[in-house]
Amino acid sequence: MPRIAYLGPEGTFTEEALRLMEPDADRMPCATVGAALNAVRSGEADGAVVPLENSLEGGITTTLDEFAWGEPLLITAELLLPVQFSLLARPDTEMVHIKRVYTHPAAITQCRGYINRELPDAFVVSAPSTAAAAQEVSLPGSPYDAAIAARIAGEHYGLVEIAANIGDRTDTVTRFVRVARPGTLPEPTGSDRTTLVVFLADDHPGALLEMLTEFSVRGVNLTRIESRPTGDGIGRYFFHFDFEGHVADARVGEAISGLHRICGEVRFLGSYPRADGITTQIKPATTDAAFTEATTWLAQIRRGGL
Amino acid sequence: MPRIAYLGPEGTFTEEALRLMEPDADRMPCATVGAALNAVRSGEADGAVVPLENSLEGGITTTLDEFAWGEPLLITAELLLPVQFSLLARPDTEMVHIKRVYTHPAAITQCRGYINRELPDAFVVSAPSTAAAAQEVSLPGSPYDAAIAARIAGEHYGLVEIAANIGDRTDTVTRFVRVARPGTLPEPTGSDRTTLVVFLADDHPGALLEMLTEFSVRGVNLTRIESRPTGDGIGRYFFHFDFEGHVADARVGEAISGLHRICGEVRFLGSYPRADGITTQIKPATTDAAFTEATTWLAQIRRGGL
Amino acid sequence: MPRIAYLGPEGTFTEEALRLMEPDADRMPCATVGAALNAVRSGEADGAVVPLENSLEGGITTTLDEFAWGEPLLITAELLLPVQFSLLARPDTEMVHIKRVYTHPAAITQCRGYINRELPDAFVVSAPSTAAAAQEVSLPGSPYDAAIAARIAGEHYGLVEIAANIGDRTDTVTRFVRVARPGTLPEPTGSDRTTLVVFLADDHPGALLEMLTEFSVRGVNLTRIESRPTGDGIGRYFFHFDFEGHVADARVGEAISGLHRICGEVRFLGSYPRADGITTQIKPATTDAAFTEATTWLAQIRRGGL
Amino acid sequence: MPRIAYLGPEGTFTEEALRLMEPDADRMPCATVGAALNAVRSGEADGAVVPLENSLEGGITTTLDEFAWGEPLLITAELLLPVQFSLLARPDTEMVHIKRVYTHPAAITQCRGYINRELPDAFVVSAPSTAAAAQEVSLPGSPYDAAIAARIAGEHYGLVEIAANIGDRTDTVTRFVRVARPGTLPEPTGSDRTTLVVFLADDHPGALLEMLTEFSVRGVNLTRIESRPTGDGIGRYFFHFDFEGHVADARVGEAISGLHRICGEVRFLGSYPRADGITTQIKPATTDAAFTEATTWLAQIRRGGL
Repeated sequence: MPRIAYLGPEGTFTEEALRLMEPDADRMPCATVGAALNAVRSGEADGAVVPLENSLEGGITTTLDEFAWGEPLLITAELLLPVQFSLLARPDTEMVHIKRVYTHPAAITQCRGYINRELPDAFVVSAPSTAAAAQEVSLPGSPYDAAIAARIAGEHYGLVEIAANIGDRTDTVTRFVRVARPGTLPEPTGSDRTTLVVFLADDHPGALLEMLTEFSVRGVNLTRIESRPTGDGIGRYFFHFDFEGHVADARVGEAISGLHRICGEVRFLGSYPRADGITTQIKPATTDAAFTEATTWLAQIRRGGL
Repeated sequence: MPRIAYLGPEGTFTEEALRLMEPDADRMPCATVGAALNAVRSGEADGAVVPLENSLEGGITTTLDEFAWGEPLLITAELLLPVQFSLLARPDTEMVHIKRVYTHPAAITQCRGYINRELPDAFVVSAPSTAAAAQEVSLPGSPYDAAIAARIAGEHYGLVEIAANIGDRTDTVTRFVRVARPGTLPEPTGSDRTTLVVFLADDHPGALLEMLTEFSVRGVNLTRIESRPTGDGIGRYFFHFDFEGHVADARVGEAISGLHRICGEVRFLGSYPRADGITTQIKPATTDAAFTEATTWLAQIRRGGL
Repeated sequence: MPRIAYLGPEGTFTEEALRLMEPDADRMPCATVGAALNAVRSGEADGAVVPLENSLEGGITTTLDEFAWGEPLLITAELLLPVQFSLLARPDTEMVHIKRVYTHPAAITQCRGYINRELPDAFVVSAPSTAAAAQEVSLPGSPYDAAIAARIAGEHYGLVEIAANIGDRTDTVTRFVRVARPGTLPEPTGSDRTTLVVFLADDHPGALLEMLTEFSVRGVNLTRIESRPTGDGIGRYFFHFDFEGHVADARVGEAISGLHRICGEVRFLGSYPRADGITTQIKPATTDAAFTEATTWLAQIRRGGL
Repeated sequence: MPRIAYLGPEGTFTEEALRLMEPDADRMPCATVGAALNAVRSGEADGAVVPLENSLEGGITTTLDEFAWGEPLLITAELLLPVQFSLLARPDTEMVHIKRVYTHPAAITQCRGYINRELPDAFVVSAPSTAAAAQEVSLPGSPYDAAIAARIAGEHYGLVEIAANIGDRTDTVTRFVRVARPGTLPEPTGSDRTTLVVFLADDHPGALLEMLTEFSVRGVNLTRIESRPTGDGIGRYFFHFDFEGHVADARVGEAISGLHRICGEVRFLGSYPRADGITTQIKPATTDAAFTEATTWLAQIRRGGL
């Protein structure tokens, strides 16, 4: 039974993601993304599940920066988890009793419509996390009457779900990834994604255009680009790229080798099956077969044969 | 005396930025970036100063999203402010008495070296903002002995600066912008920056490459690109661009007109003098004179003259 | 009745092209392409018809170079003329009598199948032009029994067409253009072609890629590119471009203005209806309407309106 | 002693080129470029020397088309030969006696200044080649008094050089290539050129831009591009490319493999030392060492190592 670290405490959306990705894991909650990843690095855990981006909030910068700067780890899987907030309270609490609500600020933002409509007079207080809010509400004598959190948090802390799916949007999604220590990569499936971090060698005009051209010439489609500061002053950035395909694919290998040549540093973060299962569309000129055929042709003309 | 809203409370780095940009302004602290910007939109304030990005933390996503989605506003100036943290306490506090420190989590991260070295036994607690931490410490009976905050916060709340510039890095910088309601643009100075938000018409492979090519063909150099989620699911992004030059420049005008034609929506956020004062290097083929000459030539050949 | 110079003598394919383009013209045969064009330049002729390229032989370099270096002229129309060779002889000549055939070397090459099959024992001699061959054969006492030439040459010189369309390929085509002194351009028709000559400012690596990018960014499709030596040594070239669209089109105007800015010299050779009548496919982002809309938008944001 | 075919008859500039390239060869004059190349193909000759382009006239289309369509051959060397015309006559001829001059039309064009100045009253007649003109003049009873040809033609046919270097330009150059049957390639020297012929798979808009991008992404600089008609109608072309570097170079190999994947057919015509001896400038990111290092890196990350 693998031991998998995750962003805790118990009852977070991350735990929910972990349960879906690894139902039989020995779950190890950690206080921060960094702590979860360090547990993998140190060998204390066999893997970790952490959030990478959210369809409303964007990239989880802690995760992005940990991947870029910390000891290298490999992403081996991803999951898209719908973010569904529940209103949770101690048993026997009724709607009319809810005067003080405790939850994370992102949940306040995302449930504003429900709160205004159903709890117009409630006082809403910010918590460090939705799971922490649920935990607090579960304590006897808590000053709060209800928490907004994942349903799973209610199960953990013995709270009742008074209302489900109370977010203003029903399509909010968080993307989680499972990471491991460097080792064997997941096999290509035809529906894969690869993630890289790229540091520029020198930040000249057109550097980003050159990077994108390395991808496009080999028919590799980007699915995400995110710039992050290097820390060395405003105007200095490094980049996260997600793109279609697996590092074992010839076109992906050539594209990232090109990046490796023109950039200061390329850190490979993994190739893994896409959560959405979409099959990668590959142009005839950039299939593995086309690359193999071109390699054979090149070897032949280099020997002087035509 | 213009009335300028800013991200408060009193004593924030934003206030420090505002004092440097508009020494004589009537300062109006607001609880959130959104509130500061809304004060401008409603006419309650004449302008606002808000943080846009930080050299360690990256883009301030609240600001980025407010600019993209809220009622349009114009950036009219920018400032680069070194982030210098001070250790602040009530008068007569000595170093040995400091057992509990209160500050914003970003400050904890950025002052970790100092804390470990000088206050190894102190208990450090997270505050909503550095200014709020200083305010709290200033209250008689506060459970905290010291705050880490901007020096200006000490002046506001009657605290003494026990140690100055205690951040681990001395080169951390935050970029602030001053915004106004749409109206007259700042004059071009030869050292200008322009900021745009761009929404794709349809998110096809190569769309970002096409956008960057619109810039490069007109010799316009990007200085920042930031992707943000549109909210419509993982994989859907819009983009913030900063680039050299002023919308009054011919090459900039043609480049962003090109973006306007190929993209779903381009929102112009302003052209304003660069805080670093670096003069834009323009290739001979993309000066205003070159554009004017080409326009004359085109008019002539369209009339059948050669 | 306009006086139109053409590449003579009477009976050339060029005359045939001229008759199709300008049935009522006063035809003025000239010894060379240069002479025909000079007749226009001097005012002696109102226009000229000259060959530009052939689907087997390629560009007619004399014409290309005359357009590039001579006093400027405008192309106002084009014609695609199938090259159909006839075997022409004096009246009463029968196939069995044909022992000596006279024609231009290109015709020898292009009718090799027919000659080998039908005239295996004939002696074939090179003539300066197919029309000159017909003229020679028409003379009493000519040493030649037949000419291979355009049917029109037979009509001119009183020869009988013994066999028609004897070329090995039935799809060979020559493209002719009608030129005039600079003046009013033909109106855009939606199915237009534009021709340019471009000299580089400095021949740096990537110069051609930059030129093609000026076209592609504005959605302008090339239909022909031809490099010609500048005369200043091996490795120095200038370029002929044909592309879809009319100089009056916004996207064409912007593209060639871009070329004009980055290149040493751009010589406009004309915009004129395509002979094949194919309607130019224009992407929504590069229609005239899209350019107009973008211009309006740009003017508005330059005034500070959003 | 290798037997080398060349474009004859004896006394041509091509013979001069051959003597410089292969002083000890057994020289075999041929009537046409095609005949010279066929002598190599059939094994009758060990190699051939033919002209490829001229700095005034441009590409020698016969040679270009032979390389593209005929049985494959390899270019193994190139030579740049200054084109120096001499006025040649039978012994004892004096300038005042020269009334009829015989030479190739290109020589007439290129020596027009000298002819007008020194032989204003002479009648100038077109010959099939400059060497043929010299040969004719050498015959007793020739109707011509002088030929304009290469000095070497005078040596061959016993003519005296009355005036040397009489061309209007002193810098005209013809580029010759030596070809062989497919076999061992010349070794890379650091100053190499490679020649290709490329046929498009489907002639879509942007196809040429895509081809050039395959080169530019690998830092390969073009030195010549020439379009030639495929024969299948106006608007259908194939391309000749010359570029810096040797097929054994990693960046060249990857670039032409890319072309091979995206194009209908790529025919390799050879890698050989540049006649001008210019050392290829290679950017650090595209040296062989950079490619090797990237290959090692890729293998490592594909194994899951980071």
